[in-house]
Amino acid sequence: MAECGNGTAAKKLKTDTDNECKDTGEFLSESPVSGFEITRILRDSAREKNIFIHGKVKDQDAVVILEKTPIRQDTLTELLKSSELKLEMRNDVYSTYQLHAPAHLNQIKTTVVCPATEKHVKKYLRQEIFLVEESGEDYRSITLPYISKQSFSVQWVYNILEKKAEADRIICEDPDPDTGFVLLPDFKWDQKQNEDLYLIAIVHRRDIKSLRDLTSEHLPLLTNIRNKGEDTIQKRYSVPSSKLRVYLHYQPSYYHLHIHFTSLDYEAPGCGVERAHLLSDVIQNLQADSSYYHNRIMTFPLRTDDGLLLEFKDAGKL
Amino acid sequence: MAECGNGTAAKKLKTDTDNECKDTGEFLSESPVSGFEITRILRDSAREKNIFIHGKVKDQDAVVILEKTPIRQDTLTELLKSSELKLEMRNDVYSTYQLHAPAHLNQIKTTVVCPATEKHVKKYLRQEIFLVEESGEDYRSITLPYISKQSFSVQWVYNILEKKAEADRIICEDPDPDTGFVLLPDFKWDQKQNEDLYLIAIVHRRDIKSLRDLTSEHLPLLTNIRNKGEDTIQKRYSVPSSKLRVYLHYQPSYYHLHIHFTSLDYEAPGCGVERAHLLSDVIQNLQADSSYYHNRIMTFPLRTDDGLLLEFKDAGKL
Repeated sequence: MAECGNGTAAKKLKTDTDNECKDTGEFLSESPVSGFEITRILRDSAREKNIFIHGKVKDQDAVVILEKTPIRQDTLTELLKSSELKLEMRNDVYSTYQLHAPAHLNQIKTTVVCPATEKHVKKYLRQEIFLVEESGEDYRSITLPYISKQSFSVQWVYNILEKKAEADRIICEDPDPDTGFVLLPDFKWDQKQNEDLYLIAIVHRRDIKSLRDLTSEHLPLLTNIRNKGEDTIQKRYSVPSSKLRVYLHYQPSYYHLHIHFTSLDYEAPGCGVERAHLLSDVIQNLQADSSYYHNRIMTFPLRTDDGLLLEFKDAGKL
Repeated sequence: MAECGNGTAAKKLKTDTDNECKDTGEFLSESPVSGFEITRILRDSAREKNIFIHGKVKDQDAVVILEKTPIRQDTLTELLKSSELKLEMRNDVYSTYQLHAPAHLNQIKTTVVCPATEKHVKKYLRQEIFLVEESGEDYRSITLPYISKQSFSVQWVYNILEKKAEADRIICEDPDPDTGFVLLPDFKWDQKQNEDLYLIAIVHRRDIKSLRDLTSEHLPLLTNIRNKGEDTIQKRYSVPSSKLRVYLHYQPSYYHLHIHFTSLDYEAPGCGVERAHLLSDVIQNLQADSSYYHNRIMTFPLRTDDGLLLEFKDAGKL
């Protein structure tokens, strides 16, 4: 940066920053986004009303994220009373309007990452997703060697199982070495409401990487997790099994068998048919055919930046 | 209504309506929501930034729906230049702000239903959802009699198949009576962009109600739909099969076999693991066991107001 060798400029910069920090709760005299030059849109969502923008602030790379705020129940009366309405359409009992709200009741949450590295930009850039069809043979010749080569660390999982980490977060444990597991809240869940309940059961056995390794030998383990997991969640959170989506991911995000328990009311990321497998279906399939998941063609999504996708491409499978 | 027999009041009402209609594009002198008295929140979504409110406008029942608008790329530069920022937090390269935007760049779409009937209110009220487990025997003793008793009309489907309706919307057709189908865009898709591509294949055969009726006899039909459907979508929309989620619903919303083709980039409603079944999995399961869907316990969600849920409750299955 040009300012690094320049005492005055560096001091000036420092003062600006101090001023900005003091500005908490007050409007900034100079907005850090007013001089923002847009390079490109990294991602946006009409459904979630957000946008991720890559650009420059005073020659520095920056990412600006805008997201409209949820409509708050506690300010609703004020919002309706103090807004202006423009009629758009009227038909029978239905009419639509554009509502112009006072700015303080209709904020946009803004996040600025500056200076932003290439890694930040890549993280926010929408990655294309492709569906891959993996036969049992593909698993053994492409996926398994890739997983082994990567040697993804699951040390953090072992730390949980050995109570070296997150011991206070464990909701229940069955210590049996064959059919035992620990159940704990997923990090995505703040545990403040049951609408987005999300727990994970992690098995004590360390020899099951994923759904692909399951055979009828593992039925006692799977039914134990289902029964004790559902029981515990009913007792602890008063959420009955008919309100729970219990499933495995394939591909999983780490290769140590774990099972997801999410509230049916919550559209959890990764609960789509292309990645999730209901535990009750898995149990039935193994009851009917012990080698069901050994031989089956499995379909799953991979992001462009996933190394496994490259392996499938190199093998001419995509 | 009291005004019905009163010429003057009726005329007054008519004039008011005319005035409001003329107000299109201009702010209304009297906002129809400023005097809105909130009875209760029917539903809201922090993710989608919307809220559905039940209340009263001048003693009439009304539903008001507010939804923040997506952030538009074409007004982004103006938005960033003309907004005020309030600093919330600063940490390393990250900082967050509350952005106060000019009202015309940050509208809230407002829909008013007035007078609203009990049916409107029920439609917008968040319905609780429960998972039901249906054995093959449950299907035959509970679900099938319920479907038959309801005699849900699929005349609109026959109209499409016979070209009496929506003929101009059909993308392709295979007229074979056993393995044929028509492919057309779903109503949820405006066909303006491929990100939310959504098409439906409807089979010509009229004897297959749902997944439950499928056996290995239907494999030529299913593979024909998969191959020709994917081919057509590739040619017409340049969307390859690796970007398509192809699946059936169970329970379906109408009991005439149809198959969903949605873009993998689009989280279509009903593509969750609890309701969707990938066509490729269905084909494999039938190849391995012709009676797979005849005997299997099927898990699916039902809303509280679904008559079938009551049938399962009455049978002591929930």
